[in-house]
Amino acid sequence: MALLLAYDGTAFAGSQAQAVGLRTVQGELEAALERLTGERRRVRFAGRTDAGVHALGQVCSFDTQAALGPQRFAAALNRYLPDDLAVRAACEVSSSFDPRRAAIARRYAYRIEHGGPRSPLTRLRAWQLRPALDVAAMVEAASGLPRERTDWSAFAGALGPQRSPWRTLLDCRVEPRGPRALAVTVEAESFLPQQVRRIVGALARVGERRLTPQAFAALIEGPPCSAGPVAPPHGLTLLDVRYPPGTLRWTDECDDDADE
Amino acid sequence: MALLLAYDGTAFAGSQAQAVGLRTVQGELEAALERLTGERRRVRFAGRTDAGVHALGQVCSFDTQAALGPQRFAAALNRYLPDDLAVRAACEVSSSFDPRRAAIARRYAYRIEHGGPRSPLTRLRAWQLRPALDVAAMVEAASGLPRERTDWSAFAGALGPQRSPWRTLLDCRVEPRGPRALAVTVEAESFLPQQVRRIVGALARVGERRLTPQAFAALIEGPPCSAGPVAPPHGLTLLDVRYPPGTLRWTDECDDDADE
Repeated sequence: MALLLAYDGTAFAGSQAQAVGLRTVQGELEAALERLTGERRRVRFAGRTDAGVHALGQVCSFDTQAALGPQRFAAALNRYLPDDLAVRAACEVSSSFDPRRAAIARRYAYRIEHGGPRSPLTRLRAWQLRPALDVAAMVEAASGLPRERTDWSAFAGALGPQRSPWRTLLDCRVEPRGPRALAVTVEAESFLPQQVRRIVGALARVGERRLTPQAFAALIEGPPCSAGPVAPPHGLTLLDVRYPPGTLRWTDECDDDADE
Repeated sequence: MALLLAYDGTAFAGSQAQAVGLRTVQGELEAALERLTGERRRVRFAGRTDAGVHALGQVCSFDTQAALGPQRFAAALNRYLPDDLAVRAACEVSSSFDPRRAAIARRYAYRIEHGGPRSPLTRLRAWQLRPALDVAAMVEAASGLPRERTDWSAFAGALGPQRSPWRTLLDCRVEPRGPRALAVTVEAESFLPQQVRRIVGALARVGERRLTPQAFAALIEGPPCSAGPVAPPHGLTLLDVRYPPGTLRWTDECDDDADE
């Protein structure tokens, strides 16, 4: 079974199971699955999200012998999940399906609010910066990022020795969201650890006029981890994961009444 | 001094100070004022918000001998306030200014999401209803509410014996916010306790087709507290409080750097 998940990352120590005692999306999901089905199953995710990062379209999969169809399975599982984690849809997949390897692209959005006092109602969803940012400079900088296959290690956290730093950025766009907010949307086949948040961190410095778009463009030539500060996780949301057409046929967004 | 306040109501037991041990907006604000100025002052609010209700434009006032101008006062106070409460702007007022009596109108917005699975990322800001609502019926019902001075006790919580149930609704509007969400915006000179949430509770029953717009229109004729269930507080936000022109001259939304 594959699931389309949404979660509020605020109270999670990231998506993947970690040391005992840390609350993770995987841990909550596997516990709810066990309560629903009686089965202990390992859940595989399309992508790892860090502590504090949100998701609207995370994808995961696992094996199950449960006789429920996807719609009823999703509705029933939602009753066992905590408030900050929900199944949006489900579909049957073969047991060989690997949501990480099968994915062809991931899309994230990062929200920044700027030029005003801090805003309590959005503090867990947006990076709030005090100065008004030069959004036009950020738009220009984002549009200049390479779209061809590129060594992105300057924008990555520490990589293991086996890990290739080559990635293909499909899209990176800065768009205003009213006078005091903006969204950075990025899409790639896959991302390096912290790559999105390091791109956003550098773009914010462009917006603060501490870095010219030209200096920004040169960052990618730098040594590993050199591109500067990592934007905080709470502004970031995994929007969706793309698969080849026909791979996943989601139920309609699950109707919690389906099995009543 | 008068302050324009924003807060996330989730972790507050409402705006007004209550029994010791309950965390309130007034309590946090008076504590921060004392830390900033050394003065113990009672803060007066334009309107009472219940536990869980949010605000973008609450107004309050208090006396102070502090020598800081409004801009610096607001910026300095923000450093002493918790993350879920912020000053947006400030202005000087006479010590006779009463933010409740001087106000000529209050405007609230209530957000409902409907027709989909629960959504973790908006669960603390929107009332999430499982069935898809008949938004057109809600629009019609809202437009039929009386705009003249009316006895609103059917839509109120319990009122003290001294309290007049007569209120004048200035606006009530239901507007879609995309395919699965809507906002109910209401404005009145002032509201009775729970009036907004009882209007929304009844409108939701219209949306669920459990109440016709005609039956909705008749509710106002009913005895006190008869209009039915109260919508939960977390969907409600106090948007702004209006004063006669010239009463309050806010600083620009306060720049936290003002005193640096």
